[in-house]
Amino acid sequence: MAATNRQWIYARKPNAQVGAEHFDLRETPIPALGAGDVLVHATHLSLDPASRAWMQGATYRSALNPGDVMAGWGVGEVVESRSDAFAPGDIVSGEFGWQEYSVFPAHRLTKHDKRHKPEHIIGVLGITGLTAYFGLLDVGRPRPGETALVSAAAGAVGAIAGQIAKIAGCRVVGSTGGPEKCKWIVDELGFDAAIDYKTGNIDKALKAACPNGLDVYFDNTGGDMLTAALRRMNVNGRVSCCGAVSQYDTGTPSAGPAGVPGFLVTKRIRMEGFVVMDFYGRREQAEHALAKWVEEGKLKAPVDVVQGFEKMPTALAGMFAGKNKGKLMVKL
Amino acid sequence: MAATNRQWIYARKPNAQVGAEHFDLRETPIPALGAGDVLVHATHLSLDPASRAWMQGATYRSALNPGDVMAGWGVGEVVESRSDAFAPGDIVSGEFGWQEYSVFPAHRLTKHDKRHKPEHIIGVLGITGLTAYFGLLDVGRPRPGETALVSAAAGAVGAIAGQIAKIAGCRVVGSTGGPEKCKWIVDELGFDAAIDYKTGNIDKALKAACPNGLDVYFDNTGGDMLTAALRRMNVNGRVSCCGAVSQYDTGTPSAGPAGVPGFLVTKRIRMEGFVVMDFYGRREQAEHALAKWVEEGKLKAPVDVVQGFEKMPTALAGMFAGKNKGKLMVKL
Repeated sequence: MAATNRQWIYARKPNAQVGAEHFDLRETPIPALGAGDVLVHATHLSLDPASRAWMQGATYRSALNPGDVMAGWGVGEVVESRSDAFAPGDIVSGEFGWQEYSVFPAHRLTKHDKRHKPEHIIGVLGITGLTAYFGLLDVGRPRPGETALVSAAAGAVGAIAGQIAKIAGCRVVGSTGGPEKCKWIVDELGFDAAIDYKTGNIDKALKAACPNGLDVYFDNTGGDMLTAALRRMNVNGRVSCCGAVSQYDTGTPSAGPAGVPGFLVTKRIRMEGFVVMDFYGRREQAEHALAKWVEEGKLKAPVDVVQGFEKMPTALAGMFAGKNKGKLMVKL
Repeated sequence: MAATNRQWIYARKPNAQVGAEHFDLRETPIPALGAGDVLVHATHLSLDPASRAWMQGATYRSALNPGDVMAGWGVGEVVESRSDAFAPGDIVSGEFGWQEYSVFPAHRLTKHDKRHKPEHIIGVLGITGLTAYFGLLDVGRPRPGETALVSAAAGAVGAIAGQIAKIAGCRVVGSTGGPEKCKWIVDELGFDAAIDYKTGNIDKALKAACPNGLDVYFDNTGGDMLTAALRRMNVNGRVSCCGAVSQYDTGTPSAGPAGVPGFLVTKRIRMEGFVVMDFYGRREQAEHALAKWVEEGKLKAPVDVVQGFEKMPTALAGMFAGKNKGKLMVKL
C-alpha cells in the first residue's frame, strides 16, 4: 500500500472551456479509519459531463468550490475495513472524488458482484446505465413503433439510452459530432440513423431522419438540438431532460428554445427533467435488466479507458472536445 | 328572424398588434338547412387570447386565413332544427365563429341546461372553466399546502384556475398588470398575493410572494414570467403550459426561457402543455364540479360583457391591452 494519497484539487474556476490549468495535483496522507469506516483504493474513476456543471455552481448538489477535491464516481477495491459490511478485496463503488484512496462510512459504498467487469460497474451497470434506463423508460416512456432521438448519442449515457430505445421497439436516431461517430453509432450500436450536428441544417437532417416525426427526445445537450427536436416533435411527444452539455463548458449559456412554451401547448408536449439519484431505490431492477441485456448481446457497453491518474484533467477536457466514444474513465 | 346574417371576416394578417383594421363586417344570406342540420342564433360570443394565436399560423388547429369567418366559441338559441336531437329554444354552444347565425350538423353542438346563465355556459362552465379545471388539476397536480402561481390571473382562465388552486388547498399567487387588477384578484377572488408584472423586478416580487418557493405554475403567458417562475420553482415543480399570451400579439416572439432545460434537470421540473379539447371526454365531470363550486359560493365567475356584435374586433384588441377582468364576451 502506498504511504500517501494523490488527489486532484479543483483549484481555479474556468471562465470558459475547462482544461488542465484548473486543477492541481496534491499529495496527502491517507486518513485514519474510524469505527464503521472503509478504506478504498480506486481502480477506475468516472469522467462525466456533469463534472463540469458542478464547477459552474449549485445544481442538484452543492457547488464545488476551488480547493475541494474534484468530485466524481469511481469503482475500487476495499483495502481495509472497520465495518462488518465490507471485507478487504470487496469490489465497491461510490462518490470517491478524484483521488487514489478514500475513506468512507460503510453506508456510502455499494458492493458489487465480482463477476461484473469494473468498466461495466462504473458504466452500463452504474450511474451511466441507470441514467439511461430511468431517463429513457420512466421519463421518456417510449412505445413500440415510435421514433426516439438521443443527443450526444456517442457519449456514455446516449449510447446506452439509444440502445434501450431500440430494445423498447423504437426507431432510434442519434445526434453526434462528426462522420466517424455518426457511422459508429449506426454500425456498432445499431441506431437506425445518425445526424451530424456539426454540418448543415439540423432541422433538415432531423426531418430526413425522422420521416414520421419525433415522439421521444432523450436530451443530453439542450441548445439548438432541443429547439430542432421541439419543432419536429409529434403531438403528445415527450422530452426527457437528462442534461445540457452544450451549456456546461462555456461562460455564456445561450437563450432557451424559442418553442417554449408555444410548441409545448400546441403539441401537448411534456418536458421533464430528472436526476438519476431520485430513482436510486430502484437501482437493482435496472442493474438486473441492464446486465441481462449485456449478457444476451442486446446491449453493447462501449468504454473509452484512459490510462493513468495524472490524465484526469486532460481526459475531462477531451470529453468536451468530443473525443470519447462510450463511457469515458481513467484506469489508475 | 333577420333575413340576413352578419359575419366578421378575418381580412388582413396583423404584423404586430391586432386591431379593428384587420377585420371586415360582411352581410350574407342565412344558409339553408340540410337533413340533420340546426340553425343557431348566437346570443353571446367568446373572445379568447387563442383567437389571436389562430391568426398567426397553425396551432392545435389549422391556421385561419384571410377571407375566413373569424373563429370563436359562442352560446345561442336554436331557431330551427332538422335534427331530432335539438328543438327550437334549446340553449346550445359550439364553434360558431364571429357571426350572428350559424348552421351546423347536430353533432357539432352541445345542449345546455337552461338553469345556467349563458355567461356561465360560455365562461366558467365552458371552454374557459374546463381549461382551468383540467390544466390546473390534471396537468399541474397541486397538493394541499403547496404554492401555486397563475399568470394572467385577472383573465378568464387565470381567474378560475387560481380559485381552483385555492379550493385544492394551495397558497395562490397571481400575476397581472397594474395595481387595480392586483387588488381585484386578492380582494374579490381570494388570491393570497398578487404580482404586478409591469412594475419593478419580477424575481424579487415573486420571491416576496412565494417565501417557500413555487410548486405549480399555471402558465398563460410564457415570456419573462415563465423564466422567473422556473428560477423560483422548488424541486419536483410542475408547469402547466396553457398558453403564451405574451407571444401572440406581436410580430417578433421572444427567445425561450434561459432556464430550459437547465432548471428542468437540476430541479426535476415537469413542463407540460395541454389543449382543453383533449379532455373533452371528461367534460361532464368538470362541469359538474365547477357548477357546484359556483352554487356553493366557492368559485366566483367574473364576466366582462361588451354590448353589440359590431364591437367584436375592438373587444379583442382591448383584451391584449389588458382591459378586461374575467371572462370577456360580446352580447349580441
